[in-house]
Amino acid sequence: MNIDAILAAAARAEGHIRKTPLLSSPFLDAIAGRRVFIKPECLQHTGSFKARGGWAAVSALPPEQRAMGVIAFSSGNHAQGVAHAAREHGTTAVIIMPADAPRLKIDNTRALGAEVVLYDRATEDRDEIGARLAAERGLTLIKPYDDPQVIAGQGTAGLEIAEQAGALGITTADVLVCCGGGGLTSGIALALAAKAPGLRARPVEPEGFDDVKRSLETGQIQRNAALSGSLCDAIITPSPGHLTFPIMARLCGPGLSVTDDLALHAMALAFQRLKLVLEPGGAVALAAALFLPGEMQGDAVIAMASGGNVDADVFALALSRHG
Amino acid sequence: MNIDAILAAAARAEGHIRKTPLLSSPFLDAIAGRRVFIKPECLQHTGSFKARGGWAAVSALPPEQRAMGVIAFSSGNHAQGVAHAAREHGTTAVIIMPADAPRLKIDNTRALGAEVVLYDRATEDRDEIGARLAAERGLTLIKPYDDPQVIAGQGTAGLEIAEQAGALGITTADVLVCCGGGGLTSGIALALAAKAPGLRARPVEPEGFDDVKRSLETGQIQRNAALSGSLCDAIITPSPGHLTFPIMARLCGPGLSVTDDLALHAMALAFQRLKLVLEPGGAVALAAALFLPGEMQGDAVIAMASGGNVDADVFALALSRHG
Repeated sequence: MNIDAILAAAARAEGHIRKTPLLSSPFLDAIAGRRVFIKPECLQHTGSFKARGGWAAVSALPPEQRAMGVIAFSSGNHAQGVAHAAREHGTTAVIIMPADAPRLKIDNTRALGAEVVLYDRATEDRDEIGARLAAERGLTLIKPYDDPQVIAGQGTAGLEIAEQAGALGITTADVLVCCGGGGLTSGIALALAAKAPGLRARPVEPEGFDDVKRSLETGQIQRNAALSGSLCDAIITPSPGHLTFPIMARLCGPGLSVTDDLALHAMALAFQRLKLVLEPGGAVALAAALFLPGEMQGDAVIAMASGGNVDADVFALALSRHG
Repeated sequence: MNIDAILAAAARAEGHIRKTPLLSSPFLDAIAGRRVFIKPECLQHTGSFKARGGWAAVSALPPEQRAMGVIAFSSGNHAQGVAHAAREHGTTAVIIMPADAPRLKIDNTRALGAEVVLYDRATEDRDEIGARLAAERGLTLIKPYDDPQVIAGQGTAGLEIAEQAGALGITTADVLVCCGGGGLTSGIALALAAKAPGLRARPVEPEGFDDVKRSLETGQIQRNAALSGSLCDAIITPSPGHLTFPIMARLCGPGLSVTDDLALHAMALAFQRLKLVLEPGGAVALAAALFLPGEMQGDAVIAMASGGNVDADVFALALSRHG
């Protein structure tokens, strides 16, 4: 993969994907001890950066193939990103979700026009259901991160960062990225390498679920021991992808990890100082920028705030603990 | 006043005041029964549109006068807007606040570099204190709304709306504006009249504190019977200004008012669907757009979300009641 795929994704996204701003607050600068710039992808369509990758993948399909519909496995942000892109392209999105997914997520995905197919986690195999539906109806599977078009779409955020940082005169800085499977991190890393080589992408993960950090340290794909047990569920994946990992290994700086409590603290500060709603998994990069200042150098840092799809009770917890 | 003052304010603000986006959500469109576009001034520096007026007023002063400092009476958003503008211009802001103002507001204003002078509401006259300080030190008073430069500064938001609505092909719509003394409403009305005459500004106030609405109905400045008792305290003023009222009377559509509970409901929806933090007074225009659809016409409406400086407990109340 190279920058051309990202530039092409950006051209296809023009007028459809929001260019999010780069925000800051003197109060956050004071906490971090350097200037902190926040890229609020919570303001993106569907409330997360996943709308970028969904758009890139759906818009890249040949029209006849796209007209038959797409399919995705997700109960979260990827589902909404794919559903949004499919609807805007006038085609169908089938989203496969566990039957015990939160009612609100099922309703939201349906409200975005998707056909939601529920399966029983105990007795049914989602891959088998998906493969059958895809074969029967000619649907195209959109993977959440290990897909060149999805990586290119997420990379469009990196193009914007390169341009926005340049306008601010920032030529050297770490760009901290909330990281699950690595689609956003690898896409941004590719964009920065081409357009702002003094900016370096670094993945940030929840403590105890730092498969990407350990993979970068060892040079080999490492897996998480568990897949639940963090508030940052949106960015917990089994391991980095086979496409995303080599890109990250080549281009990223060392990984970072933060506790759930630091993510909640960053959420409370984003509420207070930026007027943004972040989900825990979307706040880990800001948490690292604010609370791990010794882990980075220079007088500026850029943090992706990757999503804001959080339930009211979790948000209220952040405010009550750190408000 | 005319558009030239607003254009000049916009030129002076270039690179210093954020151009806020125009956001939307299909979920909000479905509630309102028409397309709803939100201008999130909560994302402005200091968390409210007041940074625009503060910037315009401070930047318009002759350099020698500006160097002597400015003064404002406020415990809220105007204080922060003036403090921010003064600091960025390298001058002093003296902010007069009641000694019983919330500690957090005092601290925030000081953290923005202002000199906070506290007075006892029971025994001291703030106007007398202000006049004495201004005379002794040569400070220039920046009024919160009844000042041509402040109106011009707030009007820069209207220039952005005219441009952004035009890019979306929206040529006819009501532009609902959270309204206290009328600085923002009159500034936006002036900008729209010049740049997008099919867009019409309409003030929105808290129910029971609808002095502007009644003033527009009667053609005479009306006063509020009380000045406390609403969660929307940021936009409660005794009456429209002597400069702002004639502009609103000439250019605005009829006023609207909403209950505190509708403002809280709009806050919860802004949390859920836009990932924005709004204060109650900053949510009344969105509340009117969503919950008073019969009060407007056409297939699109634009709502100012004028500020997000809300305490965690009030925000949690909105989420618990309507989340």
